[in-house]
Amino acid sequence: MIRAKIEQAVGILNELGIDVWMTFVRESASLHDPCIDLVVGGHVTWQSAFLITRSGERIAILGSLDKAAHETLGHYAEIIPYVQGIGEPLRETLARLDPPRIAVNYSTDDELADGLTHGMYLLLQKTLGGTPYGERLVSSEEIVSRLRSRKLEPELARITRACAETVDLFAQLHKRLKAGMTEKEIAAAMVEIMERKGLERAWDPEQCPAVFTGPESAGAHAGPTDRRMEPGHLMNMDFGVRFEGFCSDLQRTWYCLRPGEAAPPEIVMKGFDAVRDAVHNAAAFLRPGVKGHEVDAVARGHIVAQGFEEYAHALGHQVGRQAHDGAGLLCPVWERYGERPFAVVEEGQCYTLEPRVPVPGHGVATIEEIVVVTRDGCRFLSPPQTEIMLVKP
Amino acid sequence: MIRAKIEQAVGILNELGIDVWMTFVRESASLHDPCIDLVVGGHVTWQSAFLITRSGERIAILGSLDKAAHETLGHYAEIIPYVQGIGEPLRETLARLDPPRIAVNYSTDDELADGLTHGMYLLLQKTLGGTPYGERLVSSEEIVSRLRSRKLEPELARITRACAETVDLFAQLHKRLKAGMTEKEIAAAMVEIMERKGLERAWDPEQCPAVFTGPESAGAHAGPTDRRMEPGHLMNMDFGVRFEGFCSDLQRTWYCLRPGEAAPPEIVMKGFDAVRDAVHNAAAFLRPGVKGHEVDAVARGHIVAQGFEEYAHALGHQVGRQAHDGAGLLCPVWERYGERPFAVVEEGQCYTLEPRVPVPGHGVATIEEIVVVTRDGCRFLSPPQTEIMLVKP
Repeated sequence: MIRAKIEQAVGILNELGIDVWMTFVRESASLHDPCIDLVVGGHVTWQSAFLITRSGERIAILGSLDKAAHETLGHYAEIIPYVQGIGEPLRETLARLDPPRIAVNYSTDDELADGLTHGMYLLLQKTLGGTPYGERLVSSEEIVSRLRSRKLEPELARITRACAETVDLFAQLHKRLKAGMTEKEIAAAMVEIMERKGLERAWDPEQCPAVFTGPESAGAHAGPTDRRMEPGHLMNMDFGVRFEGFCSDLQRTWYCLRPGEAAPPEIVMKGFDAVRDAVHNAAAFLRPGVKGHEVDAVARGHIVAQGFEEYAHALGHQVGRQAHDGAGLLCPVWERYGERPFAVVEEGQCYTLEPRVPVPGHGVATIEEIVVVTRDGCRFLSPPQTEIMLVKP
Repeated sequence: MIRAKIEQAVGILNELGIDVWMTFVRESASLHDPCIDLVVGGHVTWQSAFLITRSGERIAILGSLDKAAHETLGHYAEIIPYVQGIGEPLRETLARLDPPRIAVNYSTDDELADGLTHGMYLLLQKTLGGTPYGERLVSSEEIVSRLRSRKLEPELARITRACAETVDLFAQLHKRLKAGMTEKEIAAAMVEIMERKGLERAWDPEQCPAVFTGPESAGAHAGPTDRRMEPGHLMNMDFGVRFEGFCSDLQRTWYCLRPGEAAPPEIVMKGFDAVRDAVHNAAAFLRPGVKGHEVDAVARGHIVAQGFEEYAHALGHQVGRQAHDGAGLLCPVWERYGERPFAVVEEGQCYTLEPRVPVPGHGVATIEEIVVVTRDGCRFLSPPQTEIMLVKP
């Protein structure tokens, strides 16, 4: 997979007219530049530079004791080991390539293209002092964005499998749900089912699964509490698994019936339908060429038109090696999203669609699906939730 | 533990005369500033600032959906949530505190104090544009170095326990070793013993354990191969476990006897003794107030004086939450180590001592121990290797 992504990167360098892409890292187990998983593989201890060029050269400059491990991996054809310092071999290599532009991993907007630390940036500038190359550094964000977004067939297959597994876990969990269970108990049941299938969580265990029940529930991004799922509650779960390094990230909503109730109250159904239809309207609109904020506006607009409060987050993010896989967000034009709302949707990208509606007196209705962008639209990677799931009193 | 480390940090801010220490992060699960484990706990999604002041204030500014999780954690007394952007609440908070110096997490030399990415640094400067605070940013490296180095009693107890477990694992492995096993088989045996005890590895599974046998062995930092441990080989293992979040990192050396041999050849014993005595000479010299390069020189000098090649790395690094726990290295004055050789040893620090000697025709003799610096010297955290271990032919 690393070799295939490096080949893909060479194509992207040519598209963008960038001569060299350099991943500059150290002690990569402690502070892990996400580009390492894409185009390096393995770890390094000392300052190391992994260079990919437009013409397809793959050059690694690294501490001598890291040499053998990277020779074994075999992703970089030329390996230049050093003992005392990276300065001389790095300056020599750049002088030989003499690239007009060198992309390095920093980005104000995309955290997955921002693995170069500020200290390493300062060190690189110091190392390149007296050469013209310090001034030729540019951001790799567009390279990384395209490379992460354009899923290769085996990448898409793994995300699809992670989604299928998750949908199956939701179905198994559904059979176990009973009124009176606490958020923690519901989460523990899900983890037990997941572990029995030999799967692992897609993100931080404290919030995977996240479970929210009732009108006083904490809101997104908090861990499960001792709050009980009571009759009349909306209960929702945000959960994902990792399959061979790739993630799912889905949400489902349940309603806990009151004694004597055959169906949820009208306001709950109205909230659920608003969320479901927002997902489907956005999916119907989503296609190559549209901008992220335009997609967000379709879902947000529908929810506001139904008389509900707009959600305090983006409609969707990309999914891949991370549940939040960077760049190309479907989000409103808000300060915290920088330039990301204006990114153009491309074929092969995988997005979540995850609007949310608080239903007064009951809790939160929320659905999260994952779609892959196709040539002229998009398709769901797993069967979407179309009906609210009911827990008997 | 987080609260205790925050209290310790307040003391260090006062020692250093720094007014505010700000950990500025986003999507912390993807690119994880190591300071989060020290003084934040939990994760954040959006741009977030965690401020600790000299007077003991603890202020978190974060995306509204991360608020509940951090309220539940309870480490920050004041939590300021935002929806659209961090700029306004951050500028207001800094204006209220009006600190002459604001430490942020960047460092050219210490990767564990270098969690601020270059993109986030640029974003911070942009956010602080029009205020005086962008120019008041300084490196937090000395704060982080002191905070990681000065082990609290529960931190030291966990590292000690991790070392004790590792020494026990080496003893169990010893009983299983047979001539003819491959490096991969030896590594697999160690992992099996480890898992049976419910322990987890301290670093990258591909190189934990690292196993090297014979004169053609790959050198440090490569994964185990199909090379067999043959009679006449030196075999060594580099291994560590994680116990309640804290690491060990130890190395041991074996010699595989030839048929008819009762003891290793003289040259092997000379190599082993050179390593062992280098460890003990360095430990005898190590005490508060000496500089890292002075300690390295004691071990390096002994090995060269015995007629062996000097090792191509540092004598030792600190151990803690990471096997390589940053700053204060016992290393020679080489370019790649920056200013680190000149750091002064302090009481409460935990260092590895890990010289290495290639013995021509046999392989590599290497021992790694961990010591804690005491008031007037240091002590080993687990029984050091004093005798070469023998594998029968």
